[in-house]
Amino acid sequence: MSFIHMQQHYHERIARVLADAINALPPLAPELKAAMEYGLLQGGKRVRPMLVYASSDVLGQANPAAQDAAAAAIECIHAYSLIHDDLPAMDDDDLRRGQPTVHKAFGQATAILAGDALQSLAFELLSQSNLGLSAERQLRMVQELARASGYQGMCGGQALDIQSEGKAIDHATLECLHRHKTGALIRAAVRLGALCATHMQEAHFTALSRYADAIGLAFQVQDDILDITADTQTLGKTQGKDLVQQKSTYPALLGLDGARSLADDLQQQALSALADIPYPTQTLEAFAHYIVKREF
Amino acid sequence: MSFIHMQQHYHERIARVLADAINALPPLAPELKAAMEYGLLQGGKRVRPMLVYASSDVLGQANPAAQDAAAAAIECIHAYSLIHDDLPAMDDDDLRRGQPTVHKAFGQATAILAGDALQSLAFELLSQSNLGLSAERQLRMVQELARASGYQGMCGGQALDIQSEGKAIDHATLECLHRHKTGALIRAAVRLGALCATHMQEAHFTALSRYADAIGLAFQVQDDILDITADTQTLGKTQGKDLVQQKSTYPALLGLDGARSLADDLQQQALSALADIPYPTQTLEAFAHYIVKREF
Repeated sequence: MSFIHMQQHYHERIARVLADAINALPPLAPELKAAMEYGLLQGGKRVRPMLVYASSDVLGQANPAAQDAAAAAIECIHAYSLIHDDLPAMDDDDLRRGQPTVHKAFGQATAILAGDALQSLAFELLSQSNLGLSAERQLRMVQELARASGYQGMCGGQALDIQSEGKAIDHATLECLHRHKTGALIRAAVRLGALCATHMQEAHFTALSRYADAIGLAFQVQDDILDITADTQTLGKTQGKDLVQQKSTYPALLGLDGARSLADDLQQQALSALADIPYPTQTLEAFAHYIVKREF
Repeated sequence: MSFIHMQQHYHERIARVLADAINALPPLAPELKAAMEYGLLQGGKRVRPMLVYASSDVLGQANPAAQDAAAAAIECIHAYSLIHDDLPAMDDDDLRRGQPTVHKAFGQATAILAGDALQSLAFELLSQSNLGLSAERQLRMVQELARASGYQGMCGGQALDIQSEGKAIDHATLECLHRHKTGALIRAAVRLGALCATHMQEAHFTALSRYADAIGLAFQVQDDILDITADTQTLGKTQGKDLVQQKSTYPALLGLDGARSLADDLQQQALSALADIPYPTQTLEAFAHYIVKREF
């Protein structure tokens, strides 16, 4: 299967799974449900769920129900973080993927609650009793996602980002910021995927984690590059925002060529990590290429 | 042990456990860590953690590490909900327990993140690998807490509350609102407690759930009563707030005497549920009494 076909296949699968998760909610609070659905189903690249699917499929026999739960849980966390990130008190964004942000469409109070409820939903999905994995495995997935989402992961990275605004920070601090802010969840996506594979070995888990760390950082470097080089319409969000918000970026620190060369290095690191996996890894190789070469 | 002594004992225990949980966080993002600590350790009645301890102790042999994790997890969820609830876009409160609210002390962005990270921390605590419970049990605790916190629990209740503001709602809607907004987490506290008991039987789990449903609603009825009858200094939050925000309350629907009589009925329901537990249940009886008779 070509990368484009694989991408489309996983894209359709996660869209169906997310729609099912929302449809399964009772009509208790229709406005909140609509806001959760809007934030979750509006589209996006679905990079994290695709990584869940691709990482588990690479390791051979995977449990489909567990893959779906893990992919949906990761995307719930990602979607909640975007909803809260867009709030006026945070990044104050009106547009996301070319559409009004959740607080623009539903009001701030409902947006805050929708984010909160999506985080809970992630852990509800992972702790379902019918996923066909051992309880030990599932508990490890919960642990993995909780840590990647919280203070030691995404939230900690967001806080570092806020602290760094308007300040000149060095390369090490910028890397630490991104390894937490976006890297932790990308790492969790790959590791949750690995945990869905029935015969996963710890050595493969470690190799995939190194792969994830490399593409996680590459993803952010490319994001910083696109903020400068792409236009608002292609991005689906406001171009040049980093500069306006005085955020430190890789192009600002290393120049545009330096940033591009770092992204290429990271892609190489990702590929060399895959060399330790004794199965065909073309999909994950193609994924690393896509992360670095994407144009939106 | 008298109720006052038990209360003090559990209070000191949960304070220690929560402080340990915060101290265990690395110094990655000091401002965020301080905000989480402030929101979590500022005090409060600690009703939910006490219910975790009391419910498991009632069923005989309980695992102390699991009790501590469950009690801390529940309080993390409660604390995060208060932080988000106090935000300008939600209830817009400047005072909580007589102190500036988290967003007043740390700014809105950090308050939003602190709430988000406390929710993640709750699930991290529950999924630790060294609690001495079976993975099945722990996974069930995660499931219980995720559902009680999210759309089908606390967040759904909050959304109902927002939808109902300024509207006349009937008794059934008000009950539904509170069973979700505060009841779900109180129910989860009792059920998580039961799941920490090594020899828990499903019949006792069911009886304790009925107990929890009754005191959960009683707690809210008494809250509504206190909003009218207590003064701001005793409450540690602004008195008469419900009236100002045009919130439907039990005294408004049933009159003050009607509300008091409902609280008494609910206390009786709680006691009769305990009759199905074949162990001494004095602490939970005293707890039901405390919920209904408390003055702040």
